[in-house]
Amino acid sequence: MSITSQLGRAFQRTAAQRHIATRPFHTTPTTRSLPDKNSPLWKLGRLNHVAIAVPEIDQSAAFYRDIMGADVSEKVALPEHGVYTVFVNLGNTKLELLHPYGDSSPIANFLGKNKQGGIHHICIEVDNIKAAIKELSARKIRPLSPEPKIGAHNKPVVFLHPKDCGGVLVELEES
Amino acid sequence: MSITSQLGRAFQRTAAQRHIATRPFHTTPTTRSLPDKNSPLWKLGRLNHVAIAVPEIDQSAAFYRDIMGADVSEKVALPEHGVYTVFVNLGNTKLELLHPYGDSSPIANFLGKNKQGGIHHICIEVDNIKAAIKELSARKIRPLSPEPKIGAHNKPVVFLHPKDCGGVLVELEES
Repeated sequence: MSITSQLGRAFQRTAAQRHIATRPFHTTPTTRSLPDKNSPLWKLGRLNHVAIAVPEIDQSAAFYRDIMGADVSEKVALPEHGVYTVFVNLGNTKLELLHPYGDSSPIANFLGKNKQGGIHHICIEVDNIKAAIKELSARKIRPLSPEPKIGAHNKPVVFLHPKDCGGVLVELEES
Repeated sequence: MSITSQLGRAFQRTAAQRHIATRPFHTTPTTRSLPDKNSPLWKLGRLNHVAIAVPEIDQSAAFYRDIMGADVSEKVALPEHGVYTVFVNLGNTKLELLHPYGDSSPIANFLGKNKQGGIHHICIEVDNIKAAIKELSARKIRPLSPEPKIGAHNKPVVFLHPKDCGGVLVELEES
C-alpha cells in the first residue's frame, strides 16, 4: 500500500474520530479522538543519526577520517545486531557506518541491492517510545515490531515501515 | 569505478607523495604532500540536512507535521532549482523534503527509480568550499561541478560523486 493511500486512510480516520469526539456533550463518545501534534503522550526529538550501509567499512571510515577530516570512532562489532559500526561525529549529529557481521545481517539484503552502499535509514529520538508505537499504530503507521527492542546504543528502538514514511526507513530511539 | 579502487588510488598517491616529502632535506621536493586531516585549508562542519525525495510533498509534510508532530515549514517552489521544498526542523538539523518542479527536475530520475520516494542526499557544511573542492579533487573525490554553485539556501554548494563517497550522494555547503 502506498504512503498516499495510507495517509489518506489515516486522515479519514482521524477526521471521523474528531467528528465523534465533538458530538454534543450529552452523548457519551465511545471512541476518543487521537491526540493531535501537541499530544502530551510523546514528542519527537533530534535526529540521532543517519545510517549508511557500506561494503568496505575500513575504507569508508578512512574516507570520512582522512579525506573529509571528520572525527571518526573505532570500528565496533555488534554480533547481537549483525553489524559492525563506525560513528562519524559531525557535531550536531552523526553518521553511523554499518557493515554486515555474520550470515544473517539485517543489512545484507540492502547491500545486495546497493553494491556500492547507500543511506539505509534515519534515526529520530522520541521521549516515550511505547506511546509513540501505540499512537503511530492507531494512525496506520506500521512499526516493524509490536514492542521496542534494545538497539545498538542500548536504548529502546523501533523501526517504522518505509511504505508508511514516504519511502524512508525511520528508526525511533527513546533518548 | 568503485569507491574501493578510488580510495586505493587516493591512498597510494598520498603515500607516494609522503615519500617524496620525507626525502632527506638536502633534496628539494618537487611535489608537496597533500594536507592531512588537520589541514588548515578547509574544515568539515555540521550535518546541514538530509534530503528526501517524495512523490507527494503535501502528504509527506502532513506526515511529519500531523502524525510525527515535527515543526514543518510551508512548501516553497524553487523553479531555478527544479524543486519544491519543505523543511522539517528536528532541532539539531533538518530533513528537506524535495518534490520535482518542472520538466527537468534534478530529482526526477531518482523518483523514477524510487517510486515511493527515498533519501536523496546528505548535506554537510564546510567553511571553505573552494579549498574543499581543490583538495578533494586532488584526492580523486570527484565534484559534480568544477566550481561551486549557488544552492537552494543561497549559499555555495557542490555535490560529490556517490561512487567516491561509499554510494552516498554528498552535498557540501559553505556556511
